[in-house]
Amino acid sequence: MTELLNRNLLSLDPHDPQRFVTLAKQTEDCILLTLSEPDFGISDVVRTNVPKSLETGRTHYVPAPGDDSMRVAVADFERRTMGLDYSYDEVITTVGGTEALYLALQGILNPGDEVIIPRPAIGLYENIVRLSGAVPVFLDTTEDAYQINGSKLSALVNEKTKAVVLNSPNNPTGVVLTNESLQAVRDAVADKPIFVICDDVYNRVVYEGTCPSFAAAFPELKAQTLVVQSLSNSYAMAGFRVGYLLGAKPVIEKLTLLHTSAVNCVVAFNQDAAINAIHSDIMGMVWAYDSRRKFMEEKLTALGMDFVAPQGAFYVFPSIQKFGLDSETFCTRLIQEAKVGVLPGICFGSDDHIRISYSAPMGNLRMAMARFENFVKSL
Amino acid sequence: MTELLNRNLLSLDPHDPQRFVTLAKQTEDCILLTLSEPDFGISDVVRTNVPKSLETGRTHYVPAPGDDSMRVAVADFERRTMGLDYSYDEVITTVGGTEALYLALQGILNPGDEVIIPRPAIGLYENIVRLSGAVPVFLDTTEDAYQINGSKLSALVNEKTKAVVLNSPNNPTGVVLTNESLQAVRDAVADKPIFVICDDVYNRVVYEGTCPSFAAAFPELKAQTLVVQSLSNSYAMAGFRVGYLLGAKPVIEKLTLLHTSAVNCVVAFNQDAAINAIHSDIMGMVWAYDSRRKFMEEKLTALGMDFVAPQGAFYVFPSIQKFGLDSETFCTRLIQEAKVGVLPGICFGSDDHIRISYSAPMGNLRMAMARFENFVKSL
Repeated sequence: MTELLNRNLLSLDPHDPQRFVTLAKQTEDCILLTLSEPDFGISDVVRTNVPKSLETGRTHYVPAPGDDSMRVAVADFERRTMGLDYSYDEVITTVGGTEALYLALQGILNPGDEVIIPRPAIGLYENIVRLSGAVPVFLDTTEDAYQINGSKLSALVNEKTKAVVLNSPNNPTGVVLTNESLQAVRDAVADKPIFVICDDVYNRVVYEGTCPSFAAAFPELKAQTLVVQSLSNSYAMAGFRVGYLLGAKPVIEKLTLLHTSAVNCVVAFNQDAAINAIHSDIMGMVWAYDSRRKFMEEKLTALGMDFVAPQGAFYVFPSIQKFGLDSETFCTRLIQEAKVGVLPGICFGSDDHIRISYSAPMGNLRMAMARFENFVKSL
Repeated sequence: MTELLNRNLLSLDPHDPQRFVTLAKQTEDCILLTLSEPDFGISDVVRTNVPKSLETGRTHYVPAPGDDSMRVAVADFERRTMGLDYSYDEVITTVGGTEALYLALQGILNPGDEVIIPRPAIGLYENIVRLSGAVPVFLDTTEDAYQINGSKLSALVNEKTKAVVLNSPNNPTGVVLTNESLQAVRDAVADKPIFVICDDVYNRVVYEGTCPSFAAAFPELKAQTLVVQSLSNSYAMAGFRVGYLLGAKPVIEKLTLLHTSAVNCVVAFNQDAAINAIHSDIMGMVWAYDSRRKFMEEKLTALGMDFVAPQGAFYVFPSIQKFGLDSETFCTRLIQEAKVGVLPGICFGSDDHIRISYSAPMGNLRMAMARFENFVKSL
């Protein structure tokens, strides 16, 4: 019966990074630098709050867009920390950033619409776009140090363009979009019926200054802007599945119907945990990533690897072009011969690169990079 | 920008029962008989397990289809209790029954496909079908005591038919489908490329004997059968958002891609809680519902109301035809004049009925039915 399934579902890209995670896990003594979430645990305030929520009976359905307390806390938090102007009824509480992104894309796209995806990027964007019967249009940012080139972007915009997806800091490069990049996007979409979907899930994990926010920079585009956010990366709460989507009220009201049909609501007591989390201090975790980042940069530079310095998130995306191997072969051999797991760039749209996650203890990074050095010297 | 949104989303039915819940909640001293989940709390074993899971670091992503421990427990549980033959890799752990249903329908439907929905039924089925660009085709079961009439069903089957949705015990009627009804469905779909989606989320809450299971009765149709299940009703865990979808492995593998794109995975520690829950005894809760059911039947019978006796779930669906009011007017007046909240039948496809939920303490039921009696006598 599988041939009868939804045609868009059957068309999805088979470049699944999970295959390499599995291979690395099944390889004895392999060190995994593949993690797409913090390797840290949750804060004590979150851990101790959950049993309290359960005691007070927070085990029932809650309103589909989230508890009022959650929506108010999120709107206030985004206003205070990022300068975003959204009221509580412009928030949908979602099953992590994934569902926020799914609602944003699935909710706006019609078959044949085009979505511009600057790439390297996670495959999730392309998959959700294809599930809608819409068409991903890739903007290759490799030659522009992963920034948005205005004329290249404008060349892709046409009457079928329905959205542009921004991800800053970016997974897999760690690059933060500059004000110039954001301005280029603004110039391309202003006065056009094009949404900008800002996947900002890493924007609390930045190493120097803050991460410029498209939504904060261009409030006049609010009607066509959607912001995807998650508690997973900032608060090490990936397993809690709490994120949120911000948008103008009329759009959010419609997207709430999709949310209701897809999942009904988000775990009641995890919304309480989220409220506690956003008031906690995460700088210790960010500093730890920063130390690891510097270590990784030193090691990769010493090896003569070519990469753009990451400014946020916990990934670095070096080129492997000079080794003459495609990225899947490189990663398979790295796992099998050197016992180090990283992800092939092809999963992110570039077969000349690999994604190394430094969401791992420093001891593991040291050992993994020693092995990595031996491996690349053997090629 | 809302006019640009997905056209299927914009087409959704506006008969939202939530409006009446809100009206009832905002009406002072109103007794709500509107609940679509147990009014009970969670069991002690579930409550005490959650902090333990958090202590052991179950706060990270888990595999998209669920932890192996969860999938194995579910497959074993369904085999032991319902005689269903599914292995652990034929299980997707979902965000409640809602997401299981969403995956089942969204994952199989293409635009223009038809889905037969016996009605009365919850609006969620129609909404998800419409979100796919598919067409709901309603089979009115009112004249058949809410059972499936084989010739009426066959008359609706054509080459566009992609699925039939079964819900037993049914929300809003509480009726359990007989073996004859299940056989009628089997006869209509066997040897045809038509899926049967069994929404079995209430099948542990039955009052006499057990609830016949389509999947158990016709294992030869496994390739075209999908079973939707939830922890919400059986274990009073609606706020935990854990359910699951069972199906043949090739279909489940494809639907997992949709699940990954929509939500990634289900809350890690809530999967541990679910495993604990399915080993707990729920008969105390079922007996309590049974007492309430008998009380409601007595009261409605004494008032001369016409209804089919519920055999499961916690709803009864009496006719209001003789009062000459449409169901929304009836419910609005019942809330405003008598301070009792119930849901209009139109939300379930029948404007001649109302849905009364007896998921409420007996004291509330007594008081509410006294008010209800005065109200109907005043009409």
